[in-house]
Amino acid sequence: MNINGKATRSIVLAADGWAAVIIDQTRLPHEFVTRRLENLEQAAEAISAMWVRGAPLIGATAAYGLALAMRSDPSNGNLDRAGQTLMATRPTAVNLRWAVEDVSARLRPLDAKVRAEAAYARAAEICEEDVAINRAIGEHGLGLIRKVWEAGGRQDRVNVLTHCNAGWLATVDWGTALAPIYLAHDAGIPIHVWADETRPRNQGAGLTAWELGQHGVAHTVIVDNAGGHLMQHGMVDLCITGTDRTTARGDVCNKIGTYLKALAAHDNGVPFYVGLPGPTIDWSIEDGLADIPIEQRDGREVSEITGRTAEGAIATVRVTPEDSPAANYAFDVTPARLVSGLITERGICAASRDGLLSLYPERHNRPVG
Amino acid sequence: MNINGKATRSIVLAADGWAAVIIDQTRLPHEFVTRRLENLEQAAEAISAMWVRGAPLIGATAAYGLALAMRSDPSNGNLDRAGQTLMATRPTAVNLRWAVEDVSARLRPLDAKVRAEAAYARAAEICEEDVAINRAIGEHGLGLIRKVWEAGGRQDRVNVLTHCNAGWLATVDWGTALAPIYLAHDAGIPIHVWADETRPRNQGAGLTAWELGQHGVAHTVIVDNAGGHLMQHGMVDLCITGTDRTTARGDVCNKIGTYLKALAAHDNGVPFYVGLPGPTIDWSIEDGLADIPIEQRDGREVSEITGRTAEGAIATVRVTPEDSPAANYAFDVTPARLVSGLITERGICAASRDGLLSLYPERHNRPVG
Repeated sequence: MNINGKATRSIVLAADGWAAVIIDQTRLPHEFVTRRLENLEQAAEAISAMWVRGAPLIGATAAYGLALAMRSDPSNGNLDRAGQTLMATRPTAVNLRWAVEDVSARLRPLDAKVRAEAAYARAAEICEEDVAINRAIGEHGLGLIRKVWEAGGRQDRVNVLTHCNAGWLATVDWGTALAPIYLAHDAGIPIHVWADETRPRNQGAGLTAWELGQHGVAHTVIVDNAGGHLMQHGMVDLCITGTDRTTARGDVCNKIGTYLKALAAHDNGVPFYVGLPGPTIDWSIEDGLADIPIEQRDGREVSEITGRTAEGAIATVRVTPEDSPAANYAFDVTPARLVSGLITERGICAASRDGLLSLYPERHNRPVG
Repeated sequence: MNINGKATRSIVLAADGWAAVIIDQTRLPHEFVTRRLENLEQAAEAISAMWVRGAPLIGATAAYGLALAMRSDPSNGNLDRAGQTLMATRPTAVNLRWAVEDVSARLRPLDAKVRAEAAYARAAEICEEDVAINRAIGEHGLGLIRKVWEAGGRQDRVNVLTHCNAGWLATVDWGTALAPIYLAHDAGIPIHVWADETRPRNQGAGLTAWELGQHGVAHTVIVDNAGGHLMQHGMVDLCITGTDRTTARGDVCNKIGTYLKALAAHDNGVPFYVGLPGPTIDWSIEDGLADIPIEQRDGREVSEITGRTAEGAIATVRVTPEDSPAANYAFDVTPARLVSGLITERGICAASRDGLLSLYPERHNRPVG
């Protein structure tokens, strides 16, 4: 997508052809800072310090981290050490583990001399695969947006509500939930996005608003409390969110608060769609509410908020009394019954086992797990 | 209620017997600052600068403002001027208008010499009436909390979720939604409150958490996104909120986001109650969604957040990109079908016309309006 009119991606190779360049997302939306990753340690820091976030982008960064490691020392020992270093940055990130294992398994049989080149090639491939998946999600979701637009006689702008950031900043390009929005915008459909602030980490107010603005997509930031009111008054045509984990029957585990928006959508007859790459479906789990443990994070993410002062400094302020504890549940589960459909790279399906199997028939008759 | 172990109210007469003392609520929860109101202008500023907020407290402050005006000049001209000055502070505040008209009408027939004394007496009476109403709401709500506690064999703490601040800071004492909680706490029932942060103005994170903490009531601040997850997992026994305006059929217009919590309560079988003084029922309106216009406030309340820095300074930070607009709808309407019951000073009733008429039979057969 575009930054200030110039096409880019969340991770690119530098002009020199070997360093990886990423955006320090912790500085957004207040400062646009890119960072060159020139060795394994810098790639690991990019992940652990959350300069990069979002499963696909973390995976791509790890792949380039291995390529950088192979560039300096392509030995078996270094391949193992590099994998361990990367894996330790965020131990629960499934996509990180997958990328490290995938690249390592491909390199191990190779002669040390060709490992760096092979690692770069695979890292590029991982990026292209992510872009292709997201673009396909976008194409399928675009159909939904186009239908709304055409139903309104191509007169009215289409209002989409999204929660958190499932945009190109969380992937290599396009995003998942936002891919249909970018494609609609690029196709000339007048589209406007209600961006939920997404407390406590404000990914909507910071990242979603920023990336939409940079690409020129009309949007308005709202507090997480506002979506129900907007839906009651016909101001939302469609909700599209991402998901961290989707169960085999279509329950959706996503950023805390997604469930509340799905309830409001259901109560007001607003379609609620979830964009996801097929590989993130967890076929081993059926009941998201019972079987997905919800991570609790530091309460300071609730009690303290970081932003930019009028003088341009980045500052953190406390909004709660010193003695008041805060709880910080990171995700919630939206039951499949509230989800109008899942937008995948293979098409749109019902949020149900049958729906998912219609798109992923190769999962038929496999033992659970 | 208590501040640091000492009983107080949100507005009191100073020891000298004539100045009114209020808390500058704009400084909470970071600083506890009281202000002496010694003349009409200071009372008007207390309202316009939002040192005091909450309909009942605004009304009480206006009543004392008239008393202070009569103390310096009890003429008819000054009575009119004082009323106009107060009314202009927040033109849409219904309770403010009511208090000014009530006190003025009582003073006008009186000899100028006794007007100040009469105004002080009526201001005190308005305060006592508010306290009595809220205490009665508390007593009725206490019954609900006691039932939950007893159903759990008096073993488990009772978890109540509330939104925004409908506590004693918004009234003269006790509050509306929080009155049952204070009475339960004082009765020795182990109670714990989930305090919704309540973006954008953070009345929950700031005021509710502060007043509960000062009175010694266990509580935890959560983001507005979290309540659904808590209810899905059985961590909320009861929701109690306040209301700005209740329609004749029991629709509830309250702080933005209330509707989302009511949806989650309904979806999870959690009782959702609303505490309100009977006088705030708007008998002229049936359909809250169709007939209550929702105020839109400055978008900067969404894009900027004020709090305390680690160094103790009060600072405002921006959380959105400079170019991203923000929308700020102040209230939403929770349809009566999602409300388990209304807790009034006369008892608890169904959120319906029949329910309300059972408690307010004098409204039977009156023409609408």
